[in-house]
Amino acid sequence: MTVREILDSHPQPSSLDRGVLLRCIEDCVECAAACTSCADASLGEKDLQELIHCIRVNLDCADLCEAAGRIVIRQTAPDLRVIRAAIEACAAACRSCGEECERHAAHHEHCRLCAETCRRCEQACNELLSTIG
Amino acid sequence: MTVREILDSHPQPSSLDRGVLLRCIEDCVECAAACTSCADASLGEKDLQELIHCIRVNLDCADLCEAAGRIVIRQTAPDLRVIRAAIEACAAACRSCGEECERHAAHHEHCRLCAETCRRCEQACNELLSTIG
Amino acid sequence: MTVREILDSHPQPSSLDRGVLLRCIEDCVECAAACTSCADASLGEKDLQELIHCIRVNLDCADLCEAAGRIVIRQTAPDLRVIRAAIEACAAACRSCGEECERHAAHHEHCRLCAETCRRCEQACNELLSTIG
Amino acid sequence: MTVREILDSHPQPSSLDRGVLLRCIEDCVECAAACTSCADASLGEKDLQELIHCIRVNLDCADLCEAAGRIVIRQTAPDLRVIRAAIEACAAACRSCGEECERHAAHHEHCRLCAETCRRCEQACNELLSTIG
Repeated sequence: MTVREILDSHPQPSSLDRGVLLRCIEDCVECAAACTSCADASLGEKDLQELIHCIRVNLDCADLCEAAGRIVIRQTAPDLRVIRAAIEACAAACRSCGEECERHAAHHEHCRLCAETCRRCEQACNELLSTIG
Repeated sequence: MTVREILDSHPQPSSLDRGVLLRCIEDCVECAAACTSCADASLGEKDLQELIHCIRVNLDCADLCEAAGRIVIRQTAPDLRVIRAAIEACAAACRSCGEECERHAAHHEHCRLCAETCRRCEQACNELLSTIG
Repeated sequence: MTVREILDSHPQPSSLDRGVLLRCIEDCVECAAACTSCADASLGEKDLQELIHCIRVNLDCADLCEAAGRIVIRQTAPDLRVIRAAIEACAAACRSCGEECERHAAHHEHCRLCAETCRRCEQACNELLSTIG
Repeated sequence: MTVREILDSHPQPSSLDRGVLLRCIEDCVECAAACTSCADASLGEKDLQELIHCIRVNLDCADLCEAAGRIVIRQTAPDLRVIRAAIEACAAACRSCGEECERHAAHHEHCRLCAETCRRCEQACNELLSTIG
């Protein structure tokens, strides 16, 4: 992603570990898109009635990944308490959405892919949290 | 807001206290708009250099209020752990933004108004959190 | 809304007509929330299969109202071509969503309320567009 | 991106050209992140006063790219008039932001990178528009 290069030219990079930060950024952006896509694919499925909770948590997860993604992209003059809270919320949504999508993974490839993306994003959030202390 | 009436006709309202929920919804939506507006007004001020952290936390707070607002609006098939995490993140952002805007309240009316809105939203979030248990 | 007062203290208000601008801001914010709520209520309805297109356009309309709302809130250093394009997109989404929700208004009060909100927002967008020229 | 694979398993893919659609999705998501990052890097620069319009259009462009990205990701039961309007707004924002960032490209590498990303996204939007007819 271009963000990777933009951060190299940032005048005031944050003190967070660069590699861990970049993975969290990319996984948040990726997971927001995957959850938006999985919610939409689920809305088009014949067994839609079985996927209502899946759609709900996909929508919530997309919103929190998008907010967290924007917040971890920003480097200038941060409040680490806000960054921490945003990543914790994103990780909680990824955990919930990953669990629910996993339940439908055998029947819907988009749920399997989305569960995988959620788990990866949850892990990237937790790694970044561990470096904030 | 129309949301108030829409929730009255919702087929599957959540178990959360209606009055507390509605106040949280309205305060999140209001606070997202106020923070977007305060960030923009600060960007136009002559003492912009003093307002950099203010703009930063305003942008973060707008993003988290918007995400939390959407999530608390939704009633169907929720995961309360996600709702809790979203509201906690919103409250943390409101606390940070309210504190920073308060520091500029004497010089900038938009910061005074934004600080007030942030404190009200933080309180509404905490009240809703206390009903989730 | 607090935004109304914040704009009164803005150091660089845009040249747009204040009353028309404020109505557009409030209607965009209101309509984004209403569409998020109507999509969610529709997801909980027994005749969900009849409401798939309704949910889809509600989600699109919420996203475009939210983006347009943020953009018309901002006053500092605008590009009027971008503002125009954002409002035109918002008006198009409101027209589409208003028409679709109207089709379900007799059966679902949330659709009737959402259609009304979309029509009001579309009109506010068109009035603001007519002042931009 | 995972969205690419999710769309391969979508039960109701839209009639739009797959390759052109995927490029538009990826460029919208990428450009939203780049504009958020460039606005933030600009906020940290010493010549911040020269970058106010740049920050403003970056914020608008991020919001419209994000909305357009979500909308073009969705395949189920679309209204092509809404998709068209969303992409047109995104293209207008990318044009404006690309032009402004280009003016600062010699002094700020993040502006040069952002201008490049905006131009690529504008082109992807225009290509998708040409297939919608």
